[in-house]
Amino acid sequence: MANESRTLLEAYNQTEFQVPGNGKRTVQVLKEALDRVDGETVGDQYGTGPVIESFQTKLADYLGKPSAVFFPSGTMAQQIALRIWCDRLGTKKVAYHPLCHLEIHEQDGLKELHGIEPILLADKDRLITLEDVRGLPDGVAVLLLELPQREIGGQLPSFEELEAIAAYCRRKGIKLHLDGARLFETLPYYGKTAAEICSLFDSAYVSFYKGIGGIAGAILAGDTELTEASKIWKRRHGGDLISLYPYILSSDYYFERRLPKMESYYRGAVELAELYNGVDSIETRPAVPVTNMFHVHASVPAPMLEAALIAVYGQTGIGLTARVNSVNEEACSFEISIGDLYETLPKDRLRRAFLLLNEQLAAK
Amino acid sequence: MANESRTLLEAYNQTEFQVPGNGKRTVQVLKEALDRVDGETVGDQYGTGPVIESFQTKLADYLGKPSAVFFPSGTMAQQIALRIWCDRLGTKKVAYHPLCHLEIHEQDGLKELHGIEPILLADKDRLITLEDVRGLPDGVAVLLLELPQREIGGQLPSFEELEAIAAYCRRKGIKLHLDGARLFETLPYYGKTAAEICSLFDSAYVSFYKGIGGIAGAILAGDTELTEASKIWKRRHGGDLISLYPYILSSDYYFERRLPKMESYYRGAVELAELYNGVDSIETRPAVPVTNMFHVHASVPAPMLEAALIAVYGQTGIGLTARVNSVNEEACSFEISIGDLYETLPKDRLRRAFLLLNEQLAAK
Repeated sequence: MANESRTLLEAYNQTEFQVPGNGKRTVQVLKEALDRVDGETVGDQYGTGPVIESFQTKLADYLGKPSAVFFPSGTMAQQIALRIWCDRLGTKKVAYHPLCHLEIHEQDGLKELHGIEPILLADKDRLITLEDVRGLPDGVAVLLLELPQREIGGQLPSFEELEAIAAYCRRKGIKLHLDGARLFETLPYYGKTAAEICSLFDSAYVSFYKGIGGIAGAILAGDTELTEASKIWKRRHGGDLISLYPYILSSDYYFERRLPKMESYYRGAVELAELYNGVDSIETRPAVPVTNMFHVHASVPAPMLEAALIAVYGQTGIGLTARVNSVNEEACSFEISIGDLYETLPKDRLRRAFLLLNEQLAAK
Repeated sequence: MANESRTLLEAYNQTEFQVPGNGKRTVQVLKEALDRVDGETVGDQYGTGPVIESFQTKLADYLGKPSAVFFPSGTMAQQIALRIWCDRLGTKKVAYHPLCHLEIHEQDGLKELHGIEPILLADKDRLITLEDVRGLPDGVAVLLLELPQREIGGQLPSFEELEAIAAYCRRKGIKLHLDGARLFETLPYYGKTAAEICSLFDSAYVSFYKGIGGIAGAILAGDTELTEASKIWKRRHGGDLISLYPYILSSDYYFERRLPKMESYYRGAVELAELYNGVDSIETRPAVPVTNMFHVHASVPAPMLEAALIAVYGQTGIGLTARVNSVNEEACSFEISIGDLYETLPKDRLRRAFLLLNEQLAAK
């Protein structure tokens, strides 16, 4: 399995065109962002100075919140947001999806560092609904909703359902926190501004290295009481670095550059998912993407799909994915996110790659 | 007071020569470090990849430890080191100096996030001695020693006392952790390698933005069990960023560039302290520096010293300090760290500045 994976990655790295993403995460990504910055610009210092303060104000305005704080990571920003809401209500109960980032990717930091015990809402393979939220017990400080729900392919509730959940939480005194790691990516589908979406939430986190393609970094936005408390917790976590400007300046640069492209990424995802769904034994989740991302599920063993992909890459020079995750002995899956590279593809060769993939899998 | 401070800072910023430090923390500091890096270099990804792994190996070797992990901050690295030692011993007790960074600069992160209650050893205004350590109660997992003890001017115990403390701790099963935020700066005085000093400690943290003058970043070194556990806690704290290379590459660059200058910085500090001690009503702590740093104590009110300094800056173009901290109504102090700028000073003008400062204070 490890060998097979390495071989797929090698074959992928040798292709002329790679379909997902914004290109390799090389040092050039940072150099390009810094090229437009005057070297005499003074760096931020422990959360102060124009570089960090102006970006925080810009994002607070963009998200329609009174205040915002830049964090090195979303892991840090979100644990802190939930902790502050818990402290305000005097409880240790939060609610989120079973496949929430805090539950599966953070080594239980929320539990180990903050002693917070989450209530897992909904089944793993579907979105949280208003009905789930209505079933919450008393004493829950905050409900976290992730838009889109990444681990199930980037699905989104309807805006009406979101509004109904927000209204219910407001009535019940439950704070609503937005895991907006990919919020920018949802805007074309919702046809809303970020501020319109965030107005349903008491606090919101956004990331600058998903669709935006920066180096790292996150913003937590909310009321001033929340953001001021978050600065104290940021220091406690060890995130109040003397200088965060390498991340801030690159976040700002790629935010300006890629925010206008979210519509195009989304359309690319819809187009590409259609090509995947044309292959026997493959389907995408969602069937029609609602952001720039989706998951590809294949009802064949991972080694078989990998062998087929390697053949396709070799014959077409088109790299569809760098890795495949085994689901069980008869199924596998992988994630696709569309970025800058998609628009550079020769579409005829892309279509040929899918015809070949279909043939390869049919022949097995 | 706020106005006075701003005026001193303004006068300082207008001087032709500034005495302490390495120059302004501008974006150029990062650009210079990146200039020598090939843009095609692939960034680190969640703690993996050659950029982070090679620097970790290099620093582990330099510090004479089996393993090392790069952290965004020392705040994060040290809380985690103490937590791991506590978990290994099954206790929540650590010991450190009353002016330890964890006690006074981290918003009680160690207590709030890890539930660890420190025992404060020694008086505020002196170093921890072997006698203090002998008085520790049972059940202390780890003793943290800071070399040099920054908040009392950068003082150092003799190497013999350090050895005796280390031997005692080893006998008693107390782990010894080095807060080496300024470890590199101690090497000329001790006449030892970093590895020789670290061999007395079970774990060691070093920083790359004090004497080294990088952007931010820290290394935690120790046995592999410690460093592997520290990676899990790094993720929990939100410090396992997708990419830390902006800090790693600049840390490496300035480490190479400034490590050989520590001897010169140290000699500069000794020379400059002598000039300060020639001024009536001023003395330095230590009287003779043992690293590149010392504290200046003046037995005059802060506003009086500030007025004298502003006059000196205006007449000589020499900036001695950007700020003065009031101790009480009759005394004030500030910190000096010598870096690259000191060797560029016209020494005759520097001496003239001190003559003038003496006159100014005598005239008050």
